[in-house]
Amino acid sequence: MLDDLDRIKDIDKEGMLEVEEKFYSQLLEAREIAKKSKLEKIKGSKFGGIAFLGMGGSGFASDIIKALIKDDIDIPVEIVKGYNLPSFVKVGWLVVSISYSGNTEETISATGQALERGCEILIICSGGKLESIARSNNKTIIKIPSGLQPRGAIGYLFFPAYLALDYIDVAKIPSMDIEEALDLIKEKAGLYRREVESDKNPAKKLALKILNKLPIIYGTEGLLAVVAYRLKCEFNENSKTPCWCNEFPELNHNETVGWERLKEITKKFILLVFRDKDEGLRIKTRIEVTLNLIKENIGEVVEIPVEGKSKLAKALSAMYLGDMVSVYLALLAGIDPSPVKKIQTLKAELAKLN
Amino acid sequence: MLDDLDRIKDIDKEGMLEVEEKFYSQLLEAREIAKKSKLEKIKGSKFGGIAFLGMGGSGFASDIIKALIKDDIDIPVEIVKGYNLPSFVKVGWLVVSISYSGNTEETISATGQALERGCEILIICSGGKLESIARSNNKTIIKIPSGLQPRGAIGYLFFPAYLALDYIDVAKIPSMDIEEALDLIKEKAGLYRREVESDKNPAKKLALKILNKLPIIYGTEGLLAVVAYRLKCEFNENSKTPCWCNEFPELNHNETVGWERLKEITKKFILLVFRDKDEGLRIKTRIEVTLNLIKENIGEVVEIPVEGKSKLAKALSAMYLGDMVSVYLALLAGIDPSPVKKIQTLKAELAKLN
Repeated sequence: MLDDLDRIKDIDKEGMLEVEEKFYSQLLEAREIAKKSKLEKIKGSKFGGIAFLGMGGSGFASDIIKALIKDDIDIPVEIVKGYNLPSFVKVGWLVVSISYSGNTEETISATGQALERGCEILIICSGGKLESIARSNNKTIIKIPSGLQPRGAIGYLFFPAYLALDYIDVAKIPSMDIEEALDLIKEKAGLYRREVESDKNPAKKLALKILNKLPIIYGTEGLLAVVAYRLKCEFNENSKTPCWCNEFPELNHNETVGWERLKEITKKFILLVFRDKDEGLRIKTRIEVTLNLIKENIGEVVEIPVEGKSKLAKALSAMYLGDMVSVYLALLAGIDPSPVKKIQTLKAELAKLN
Repeated sequence: MLDDLDRIKDIDKEGMLEVEEKFYSQLLEAREIAKKSKLEKIKGSKFGGIAFLGMGGSGFASDIIKALIKDDIDIPVEIVKGYNLPSFVKVGWLVVSISYSGNTEETISATGQALERGCEILIICSGGKLESIARSNNKTIIKIPSGLQPRGAIGYLFFPAYLALDYIDVAKIPSMDIEEALDLIKEKAGLYRREVESDKNPAKKLALKILNKLPIIYGTEGLLAVVAYRLKCEFNENSKTPCWCNEFPELNHNETVGWERLKEITKKFILLVFRDKDEGLRIKTRIEVTLNLIKENIGEVVEIPVEGKSKLAKALSAMYLGDMVSVYLALLAGIDPSPVKKIQTLKAELAKLN
C-alpha cells in the first residue's frame, strides 16, 4: 500500500507526508529566518539562566536544545512544560517562549509571569497572542511561517531558537555540525520519500514492522531519550497510536523488572531502541544485557542505529527517520496523519471557560 | 487471598509489606536522623544552585523535593539521572548525591565530577563507596540505616534530604506541613495494613481492580506527576508489572490522540488518575474532558482523590497509597515483591567490565 502513490494522496488529505519530505528545505529556510532575526536586544547580556517554555512539539524543541548544549553551557537551563514558572526563574534570566500558533495557553501564562518578573524574553511563534505580547512589550521575536501542524514545523521551532543561542553568545555551535546535519537530512530525505519503494525505503520498512503492534521506545539519557520522546509523540499524533518511552540508564532501576507479568499483552508490543555507536561501553552493556533479559516478553525488538558524527546530526537524523515512520504508519493504517480531533475538542471546551 | 495472612507471609519472604506498614515509623526515624546530622559545613553559604543526583528511588526523592520547593526557592534546581553533570553545575553549587546502597555507579560518577569541580557536596547513603568518598574528602554525609530494598527506604532517602534544605536555609519548610503529613500517614497506615480486610481497605481494593490489567498512570505537572512516576516504578519493581505514566497538561498535546488505534490491546489497560481537589479549573477541565474522550479505548479508568492540605501531605499520602497497592498487587499475583533479579543480573554483568 505504501508504494501506491494515489492511495497515499487519498488518505493524506492535508499533505503531512509532503511536509515531512520537505524537511530539508524547512531547515534551510529556518536557518535564513534565524540569520535575519533582530536579536541585538538580547545579545551581550550575561544571563543568570535560560528557561524554555513550550508544550508538545515546541517543548520537544526545548528538550533537544537542552540535550545539545548541557555539556558546554555556563548557565542553568530549565524547561517548563506547564502554566507556571519556577520561582528561581527571575530578573536576569532569558526566557525563550516557543509556541507554533502563539496561542498555547500554558506558554502564554508562563510568559506573562516572565514579563512580570522582568526577565529578558525571546518569543518564537507564527503569530497569535504571543506575537501580540512580543510587539506590545517590545520583546524580541522570531516569527516563523504559519499554516502547518505544529509537529510538522519542528525545523522552524527548533533551528532558529538553537542558532540564536550562538548569535547571542550563550552557546557555541560549530558551523561544521550544522553543515553535517543538513547534508545528512538531505541524503535521508532522498531515501525516505514516497517514490522509494518499501523494499529499499527504511522508513516504510520500519512502519510495516510496527503496524499491528504497540510501540515502546527506548533511548539513552540526553539526546536519544529526547528523540525517543519525540517519536512517542509522533506515533500518538500522526499515527493515532498509543505509545510510551523511557531512557537508559534510569529504566534499569525499575522498568527492566516490569517486563514479567502480563506477557500475553506485551507480546503484542514492539520495542524500538535507538543505538548510538558512541554510546560508550557501560551504556552498550546496559542496553544489550537488558534486551536479552526482556526480549522474550515482547513481540519484537528492533534496534535503530543512529547515524552522524555530531550530536546535532545524530539528533536530527534520528528524529527525521521517526517522523517519516510515524506518517507511513498512519497511511498504512488508513489514517489521515494531520487531524488531531480530540485535541481540538479539548481546546474548544477550555475556550468555554474564558 | 489478600485477607489470608498466612498466605501473605508465605509469598512475601523478605517482608516488603511489613516495611511498607512501618512507613510512619521510618518517617519519624528519618526526621530524627535529619535532626542529628552535622550540616554546619554547608550551612550559611549562598549557593549558585542545587543539583540532585540519584537513580530510581533516590531519583524519585529528588523529583519530589524539586516539586515541593520549586515555587519558593531562589536558586536553580537541577536533577541528574545519569553518569554526567551538566557543565553549568560548577563551583558554588550544592550537589546532593542520594544512593541507598552508596554504590550506584551513575551517582558515583557524577559525584566524582562534582568533587573535581569543587562543588559543595551532601551525600545521603547507607554506606558503600559514596560513604568512603564523603569520609575521605571530608564532605557532609547523612548516613541512613541499611538492610532494605532502596524503594522501601524512601522515607530515609527523601525526608532527611528535604529537611536539610530547611536547616541550611535553602528552603523554608513549615513545621505545620510536616506534622500534617505525619498525621495523615499514621492514619493511612492504620487503614492499609494487612489486618484490614479487602472490603474496607482502599489499597487492597485498588490492587484487586488492577490485577489482570496493564496500568497507565496520569498525574498533573509538578507534585502528582512525580507521584505517578513513583507508582509506575513501584508497579515495575514490586509487582513485576509493565506500566507507564504521563502528566497533564503535556499529555494533552500528544498522548490524548494516541488512544485511537490498537483498542483491542488498550482495552486490557487500566488508567489510574491522581486528582487534586486544588488542581484548579483549567486542569480539572483538561482531565475531565480528556477522560471522556479516551475512556472507551481503556478497560477501566479509576480516579484517585489525593488527600491532605499541604503539598507535602498530598505527595506523601498519595505515594503511600500507591506503594501499598503495588505490594498487594504483587501478593495477589503470587509474586514476592522484594527480589529484582533482572537488575541483579545486569549489575553482575556491569561489574565484569571493571
